[in-house]
Amino acid sequence: MENKRPTPLSELGEFALIDTLTQSVKLKQATSLKGVGDDCAVIDTGEDCLVMTTDMLAEGIHFDLIYTPLKHLGYKAVVVNLSDVYAMNASPTQITVSIAVSSKFSVEALEELYSGIYLACEKYGVDLVGGDTVSSLTGLVISITAIGRAKKEDIRYRNAAKENDLICVSGDLGAAYLGLQLLEREKALYEENKEIQPDLASYDYVLGRQLKPEARNEIIRLLKEKDIKINAMIDISDGLSSEILHICKQSEVGCKIYLEKIPIDTTTIMISEEFKLEPTIAALHGGEDYELLFTVPLSEYDKVKDLREISIIGNITSKDEKTFMINQTGQLIPLAAQGWDGVKND
Amino acid sequence: MENKRPTPLSELGEFALIDTLTQSVKLKQATSLKGVGDDCAVIDTGEDCLVMTTDMLAEGIHFDLIYTPLKHLGYKAVVVNLSDVYAMNASPTQITVSIAVSSKFSVEALEELYSGIYLACEKYGVDLVGGDTVSSLTGLVISITAIGRAKKEDIRYRNAAKENDLICVSGDLGAAYLGLQLLEREKALYEENKEIQPDLASYDYVLGRQLKPEARNEIIRLLKEKDIKINAMIDISDGLSSEILHICKQSEVGCKIYLEKIPIDTTTIMISEEFKLEPTIAALHGGEDYELLFTVPLSEYDKVKDLREISIIGNITSKDEKTFMINQTGQLIPLAAQGWDGVKND
Repeated sequence: MENKRPTPLSELGEFALIDTLTQSVKLKQATSLKGVGDDCAVIDTGEDCLVMTTDMLAEGIHFDLIYTPLKHLGYKAVVVNLSDVYAMNASPTQITVSIAVSSKFSVEALEELYSGIYLACEKYGVDLVGGDTVSSLTGLVISITAIGRAKKEDIRYRNAAKENDLICVSGDLGAAYLGLQLLEREKALYEENKEIQPDLASYDYVLGRQLKPEARNEIIRLLKEKDIKINAMIDISDGLSSEILHICKQSEVGCKIYLEKIPIDTTTIMISEEFKLEPTIAALHGGEDYELLFTVPLSEYDKVKDLREISIIGNITSKDEKTFMINQTGQLIPLAAQGWDGVKND
Repeated sequence: MENKRPTPLSELGEFALIDTLTQSVKLKQATSLKGVGDDCAVIDTGEDCLVMTTDMLAEGIHFDLIYTPLKHLGYKAVVVNLSDVYAMNASPTQITVSIAVSSKFSVEALEELYSGIYLACEKYGVDLVGGDTVSSLTGLVISITAIGRAKKEDIRYRNAAKENDLICVSGDLGAAYLGLQLLEREKALYEENKEIQPDLASYDYVLGRQLKPEARNEIIRLLKEKDIKINAMIDISDGLSSEILHICKQSEVGCKIYLEKIPIDTTTIMISEEFKLEPTIAALHGGEDYELLFTVPLSEYDKVKDLREISIIGNITSKDEKTFMINQTGQLIPLAAQGWDGVKND
């Protein structure tokens, strides 16, 4: 205890900070089946289980109002929470919405924000049942809590991946990150010359993925329909690399990810070239795709292999085999997280 | 739609703003028994009900770190939510905690904040099961969601007060407001002369009420023990006047409040004199007392009248009789809310 220098938050990063702050948590309520450490907490409610998740978005950190329409922001703020509920294999039912807002906002601006919130509620069939509205001395902060329901035996955790499981991902990755790069580029151009009218027509797909993402409820429905057994599941909010490492760490397993198998849309590849970025990097570390990453037993291979919306990108190995990516030439590269970090990036 | 001028938030105030933003809410989930408009939302979970509430505290609006110890702040942030759960006659079980924090905070400062959060969890027997930690470009914002459990028939709403009910309040009122005035005065003195060492020993009670309030779980226990039938209930966060008006509006009734019956601690009266404030004003409009305000049928009078912790301060009348206070000389004064407004006060 010699060193009394205060530790800057940036020294730890989000995950280590959460570990530090929650290491002394001991769950005492018999109904607390799962606390910190998964996409949602799980609460036993008798017949069923309740899952519960919360996300906070801060102006200037998670969104820039220069290029984020308030309606889209409201929609996205709901969706990122619902994505966590689906990632537990549960159905979202209710949300609460709290906002801290400075007096520079008008009533009409907040109505616009809420119109996006209600649109997401409508689309995903959830009810807004409460919240709080307070002043802030500066920017906008949105905090949403979502709850959902599932049968206890249906809930899927991050810690249940098994050796030899196939690693699967829904949809495609990296587009949301490219959308963000594009918006940042246009913002810089606009700030240089306010006369400029950006022509973003051919960028629709990646912009949509950034500004108005969807939660993959239809993937959950598809997996149920096809009776596919899932072992571990997580949603991709911080980036594929970071999420795979969460699964491996919590399941005490290793993995092999084949880079060429990672699903990337052709628009994403095209725009990556424009930015002189390797598309795989965007897909691995970009984040905000809100796709589902899950593992299935090898026995499910036949059921999964032909599903257009699902890609098999690797397999779970033993813990001793560590976490690796394999590139086009068959080279093994250690897998490290470089995903979005809500605390370090400030 | 002629007037296109954006409406400033301050023109509406918090309650009208919430009404505006939530007027189009239609609850669709069969499990959503109660949405916006009470201390908690109520969700049907089969055997029991789940109640859910959320509160957001913003630096510079709800707390001033100059005189608020971080540990107390963490404690209070939990307690204000639990108070809402008790006000539904439910038992809190789990919370999630999200914070937006600027890089000026150290890891040690956050640990101090969380030590207060855990202390409150310990004292009230609730589990911290999740949350989010993000950067903010400026101050600290804390958003807590609490859930609790109750049998459906035990839940008490704001809208169930009946004509002739007795209006009861727990503990005493106004102290938290005086505590705040005191802290603000000492801050101003300190800013004038940094050498000053405030002597606040005789102010312990009101400072404690402001900085480290408690939720009144033992009042709930007492009412149950004495088998006292409650009709409507709410907690006093914004001020007695504002809370009574919530009950009257939602129950479609009127009220008579006897000013001399409002419980005020002698310390509060003494310090009010120092500030040349009418103690009744602090008790009526001060807020942050986190006492319980409830109505009971007249038939409960004998059970309630001798309870040291409960004061009968008036009675519910018909809607036509409006909402009135009665002063020491028997004069009727219309009751208007001047409670804390999280949006107007900015």
